[in-house]
Amino acid sequence: MSSSRSERRQRRRERQREAAQVHMAQPVNDLPVYELLTEEGLERIHNASMEVLAEVGMDFYDEESLAILKKHGARVEGETVTFDPGLVEEYVAKAPSQFTQLARNPDNNLTIGGNYITFAPVYGPPFVIDQERGRREATLEDFENFVKLAYLSPYMHHSGGTIVEPTDCPVSTRHLDMIYSHIKYSDKAFMGSVTSTENAADSVRMAEILFGENEIRENPALISLINISSPRRLDDKMLGALKVYARARQATIITPFILAGAMAPVTIAGTVTQQNAEALAGIVFSQMVEPGTPVVYGSFLTNVDLQTGAPVFGTPESQIAIYTSAQLARRYNLPFRSGGMFASSKISDAQAAYEAVMTMIPTIMARVNFVLHAAGWLENGLTAGYEKFVMDCEILGMLHTFLKGLDLSDEAFAMESIRTVAPGGHHLGTPHTIERFRTAFYRADLFDYRPAEEWMEAGSPDATTRAYQKVKELLKSYEAPEIDPAVDEALTAFMEQRKAELS
Amino acid sequence: MSSSRSERRQRRRERQREAAQVHMAQPVNDLPVYELLTEEGLERIHNASMEVLAEVGMDFYDEESLAILKKHGARVEGETVTFDPGLVEEYVAKAPSQFTQLARNPDNNLTIGGNYITFAPVYGPPFVIDQERGRREATLEDFENFVKLAYLSPYMHHSGGTIVEPTDCPVSTRHLDMIYSHIKYSDKAFMGSVTSTENAADSVRMAEILFGENEIRENPALISLINISSPRRLDDKMLGALKVYARARQATIITPFILAGAMAPVTIAGTVTQQNAEALAGIVFSQMVEPGTPVVYGSFLTNVDLQTGAPVFGTPESQIAIYTSAQLARRYNLPFRSGGMFASSKISDAQAAYEAVMTMIPTIMARVNFVLHAAGWLENGLTAGYEKFVMDCEILGMLHTFLKGLDLSDEAFAMESIRTVAPGGHHLGTPHTIERFRTAFYRADLFDYRPAEEWMEAGSPDATTRAYQKVKELLKSYEAPEIDPAVDEALTAFMEQRKAELS
Repeated sequence: MSSSRSERRQRRRERQREAAQVHMAQPVNDLPVYELLTEEGLERIHNASMEVLAEVGMDFYDEESLAILKKHGARVEGETVTFDPGLVEEYVAKAPSQFTQLARNPDNNLTIGGNYITFAPVYGPPFVIDQERGRREATLEDFENFVKLAYLSPYMHHSGGTIVEPTDCPVSTRHLDMIYSHIKYSDKAFMGSVTSTENAADSVRMAEILFGENEIRENPALISLINISSPRRLDDKMLGALKVYARARQATIITPFILAGAMAPVTIAGTVTQQNAEALAGIVFSQMVEPGTPVVYGSFLTNVDLQTGAPVFGTPESQIAIYTSAQLARRYNLPFRSGGMFASSKISDAQAAYEAVMTMIPTIMARVNFVLHAAGWLENGLTAGYEKFVMDCEILGMLHTFLKGLDLSDEAFAMESIRTVAPGGHHLGTPHTIERFRTAFYRADLFDYRPAEEWMEAGSPDATTRAYQKVKELLKSYEAPEIDPAVDEALTAFMEQRKAELS
Repeated sequence: MSSSRSERRQRRRERQREAAQVHMAQPVNDLPVYELLTEEGLERIHNASMEVLAEVGMDFYDEESLAILKKHGARVEGETVTFDPGLVEEYVAKAPSQFTQLARNPDNNLTIGGNYITFAPVYGPPFVIDQERGRREATLEDFENFVKLAYLSPYMHHSGGTIVEPTDCPVSTRHLDMIYSHIKYSDKAFMGSVTSTENAADSVRMAEILFGENEIRENPALISLINISSPRRLDDKMLGALKVYARARQATIITPFILAGAMAPVTIAGTVTQQNAEALAGIVFSQMVEPGTPVVYGSFLTNVDLQTGAPVFGTPESQIAIYTSAQLARRYNLPFRSGGMFASSKISDAQAAYEAVMTMIPTIMARVNFVLHAAGWLENGLTAGYEKFVMDCEILGMLHTFLKGLDLSDEAFAMESIRTVAPGGHHLGTPHTIERFRTAFYRADLFDYRPAEEWMEAGSPDATTRAYQKVKELLKSYEAPEIDPAVDEALTAFMEQRKAELS
């Protein structure tokens, strides 16, 4: 006899509780922060940015936005807007230094800002790659797969946004499918659409259905990526989305998209100066629309290869930029977004891994708050790698452990063990070790620690091969988190209505 | 008609001068250092170590060494030696805070200590691996190949020591072949043998032939790796070598070899406490043998996988240990050795690269002075990877650029370019960019930045495949630096004499 629906639900809840135990709390970076610049150096960049804002300014391609800017004291000439330092200071100060983002499972609510870190998946690739099927256009199935992989990783705190472009969905309604997938297949926080004013409004509406209209005004349910088209442009689509989110008190990440040498000077001091002016212009605007609406200072900055003009990730120049930008965001008391597991490599080979960690450790040491692209990024962001995603998550696990810092409790000194283990003896069997046997060290399940002979007998699988196995296992083991059927129905109904309207 | 010998020599000198231009100066880490621990935390570890030294002590398995220790005020009971804090402080203070190591080419002389960084190749593997021939026992030819690769890298400052074990040479005379290879095939600084008292003496004799007896007493020509067999043992071979080098005023690196959980407690505070006690015991001894002889505080510390007992590299625990150990070395005003491009992976895949950078960036941020294993390490140190060697060197190049920090000159702010490039314009053609076109960004020649289509047409070569090509090209292009024929003859004669005596 088959078990009843309530029994099945009960068992599922138990499994979910068990699974939830492997979910790690969002890490807090209470380690000393790495400050690359002196206070004097930081002030020089700040002052240069203020000069850019006051004398050069930024273009806003939207009439209503220009009116808002003018009304609140910015100088508007045509589409170009300049800001006096006092005005910048006044409006930047209105933004909260940290806020809570709601998740469908309240245990997964996130603090954005302060010393808190949030890891979110790669955003934007039109392609995916795996060992079996190679590089191909991403589909909604791929999108759902990545939502599931992010849900299953204890080290990924956020479900992200456009993890991949579901190219098999119509462009006009794709945003609905993506938001629904985030809600349906995960219970972690997610991002809204920024492709138009209407798509942003749809995102807000779906968040309202899920969380309630009042609830999301108290704490944002969405965080969305507003890119500034450097140099010095905010286009009508981004401004439309920004206005919708700001008025709904949903969080935005204002991010100049910069490849130094192309969209900004070939020197990092100049590039960071320009970036700072651009980010602050966007942030000031958000606070003019809705004072106190949550906003994140964003940096997406690397350099081009000057021989080919191609973007290059994992560079030393981008490391310097992360540290510098983080100090600027702290100076303005704003949550900061930057970094990630960037790679220029097309595949999850050694190049990709070198590049990824070369950016990721500075991301941690600089105390970035919101780390988009924390897993899966390949090929300058054109491809999301299945294997790279789970390998990157393994590194995120290690970083969770690193962030705990050094335990200096009396027990951690293990003086009794040091006294009693004889010269040349070993600590494997001491009471001190046995007590800590299971939890003492982070263990990377995905990495191969077998002796070479054993590994060769197993067919010498490289990291990518093992990672692909892990991807298959994870997707097979996946079970969707339960969702209130009434909410699911309301979301589906809204989606269908909007799809009918938009087709 | 063939050119004369002097003409050929002249041309070779010119080629060498050209090649030398790509050699980078040893980097100086004048960036802010990352201090993980508070001063109070650091003092707790120091004090705990002093307790270990005073009450538990270390074993020295050599009669003469015990007599030296006793004579200078240490307490000796059997083979166990304990030290009062005052005695430790007194003798540690005699060691220089930095020193110069001589290289055959004086342009390659190195400063060891202070803010200077030295990168040296992997040390010790009995195996090598490359894509064509797979994993196999290392030979003298492999040894010479790695000496050549280190010589050819502008980012490798040191020729290292036992880069690989030349297993085709008799154990008793292998040290002679290795030292001769370093001298003959490179003009960078190198390390001495520590496998016995006699082998250390042979190393010193060869350095004297090369540099002169008085010269090497003024500045050491050798730096050699004295490992402490943790927990708490210095064996007769290591003590024999240490005495030879100290008396000849050659530098040693006193390094407890520790896998936390096996040779030391399973907690990092306890492990670092034990390591500090052990390193200081060795350093104090070196200064009792010869006050002022150059010595380096060494740390080689990672943890075991508690499920298998195998060592694991690239772990978060080892990152914490590097930062902590570096702070201790600075507290004692001693040059510090640690870190490297460690990996547990058997091959140069993504795992190896992730692991390598996970240790290497902390190595830089903690301001390590002497970085052994800076390239080539695989399989927990059992294998030297040809491809990994050249890939690691590419990362070292990036780190050289990172260490330059942020240029805050007026020109670097590029305010004129920011003012004149219109919104949506680009900086590729500005006078500011064109002036800096060739030198603005570090370019990793080994990494692939081509568009995916172009890369696929080229056969989709992964990083390891490209690296193997680079290895072949480098070895083909190699030309030995010129050596004074009289010195070469004297070295060869000494080697032959010693080989006859030792066979």
